[in-house]
Amino acid sequence: MIGEVPNVEVGQEYRTRRLAHEAGVHRPLQAGICGTMRTGAESIVVSGGYKDDEDYGDVIVYTGHGGQDGAGNQASNQSLDDAGNAALVTSYLEGLPVRVLRGYQGGSIYAPKAGYRYDGLYRVTNYGSKLGIDGFLIWQFRLEAYDSTPMPPNAQKSDTSTNLTKPGVTPVAGVEKPERITSTVQRIVRSSAVKRQVKAWHDNRCQICETRIDVPGGSYSEGAHIQALGSPHNGPDTTGNVLCLCPNCHVMFDAGALVLEDDLTVVRGGQLAGVLRTHAQHSIDLDCVRHHRERWRM
Amino acid sequence: MIGEVPNVEVGQEYRTRRLAHEAGVHRPLQAGICGTMRTGAESIVVSGGYKDDEDYGDVIVYTGHGGQDGAGNQASNQSLDDAGNAALVTSYLEGLPVRVLRGYQGGSIYAPKAGYRYDGLYRVTNYGSKLGIDGFLIWQFRLEAYDSTPMPPNAQKSDTSTNLTKPGVTPVAGVEKPERITSTVQRIVRSSAVKRQVKAWHDNRCQICETRIDVPGGSYSEGAHIQALGSPHNGPDTTGNVLCLCPNCHVMFDAGALVLEDDLTVVRGGQLAGVLRTHAQHSIDLDCVRHHRERWRM
Repeated sequence: MIGEVPNVEVGQEYRTRRLAHEAGVHRPLQAGICGTMRTGAESIVVSGGYKDDEDYGDVIVYTGHGGQDGAGNQASNQSLDDAGNAALVTSYLEGLPVRVLRGYQGGSIYAPKAGYRYDGLYRVTNYGSKLGIDGFLIWQFRLEAYDSTPMPPNAQKSDTSTNLTKPGVTPVAGVEKPERITSTVQRIVRSSAVKRQVKAWHDNRCQICETRIDVPGGSYSEGAHIQALGSPHNGPDTTGNVLCLCPNCHVMFDAGALVLEDDLTVVRGGQLAGVLRTHAQHSIDLDCVRHHRERWRM
Repeated sequence: MIGEVPNVEVGQEYRTRRLAHEAGVHRPLQAGICGTMRTGAESIVVSGGYKDDEDYGDVIVYTGHGGQDGAGNQASNQSLDDAGNAALVTSYLEGLPVRVLRGYQGGSIYAPKAGYRYDGLYRVTNYGSKLGIDGFLIWQFRLEAYDSTPMPPNAQKSDTSTNLTKPGVTPVAGVEKPERITSTVQRIVRSSAVKRQVKAWHDNRCQICETRIDVPGGSYSEGAHIQALGSPHNGPDTTGNVLCLCPNCHVMFDAGALVLEDDLTVVRGGQLAGVLRTHAQHSIDLDCVRHHRERWRM
């Protein structure tokens, strides 16, 4: 269960991990991360178990799982082979929302006084490894609250967050360590269950150029609607109207630099450029192909 | 001037085009699009001049410029060579905000009763050509209001809009023509003045793989911070900390599948994979390169 749990409000408190488990908000009784490499991370608990954690309210720097001795010190390196860490990589690559719970042991001003509190949905915006305070390799994940996620009690918007909904002209070049990062958005790649299905069939390999982007802990592709959704194109949100593409081919396809013929040959700048690879379970809707091609008459 | 005009509120009305011109909200006195291929579109006026326009309040399907006779009928094909149309393509490729004015002639429930009204910032979310009602080729641009843009009077959120700020689990596969598209965001590519500078120096050509994505009306690349902004990485927002990359290399660089040595050789999966191309005005900050590389110890 990725995303909101029905009938659970942000701010809901649980006296114990077991009660949070029974509510379906965070299912494991001990582990801080719930999820797998295949599904992504459902939820995490921020509860002070890792001394390298940082909590800014709407931004959390969360240390991955593993490598600790019984006393809460790192005793060996962490790895992306750990299921929980791999789950957070998938959440990053797929843009999946992660439920955040804070525990009373959190050690920040955002921690509840007692028990555990569900603090809403966050997204993983980057990750990486470093030598932790104890001298072993740790993996860290930056999580940012969605704009619609209420701030936890005691919080104010962090200086380091960026703001998606307030476009505007951007800052002066050359200013180092800006207090607040204002930025516009160049490109938004959306995700959906339909797109994830198509990407899974193709194992993240581009149907046009055969590229698969492999990164530590996973691989990456994008679902691309053939006939765009919404006016004026009004394409259907079905697997027959979605391709699995690498980001480069996706940009080209959306801007008409690549089109498909009815026999699924790929045309680039008027030249034959190969044939779309298909998959037994993925039948392409030729009405959508025609609509896309018609959209790029010049 | 891209974005908000200082001291002009959304909803501000102007009796005439000249008054909107003097306020700096829409500078041309006649043309519906203000902008060039280089800068992107500053502003557009939705005023019923093109019969193929559609206005849903928060979503506008806007017909490009050109090809009309004196009586408001299409008499020839439109082209992306037209400066205004090319400006809207740049706004799409660069993710730049466009000011929208509605005029009394708009012919929709969102048009003001008299004069012109500034209705805030929209983004171009797709474009394409089609045969218009009069049988000539027209170009059309879909513009969507930012979440922070107030709705024009009489408006309600369109069924076809998507909502960035409300993540959640997505819809059932196989449902055609959804009433409302709910989706999560997989990837967000941000833009800024610093990034635009770097992309301009490199003419949108990837510094790692030399790919330049050429599309009808423009070309596309992404600015990538070497040392990520914000905690835990806290990189500077300077040109020395930004690379011009194609989307594929950007995904790989952000997820550690590509790192740079201090001599700017590119390492991919432990193997030498070329040398970063540089530019006389673009000196790379080696502290940032080191920080990025350290982030991907395994």
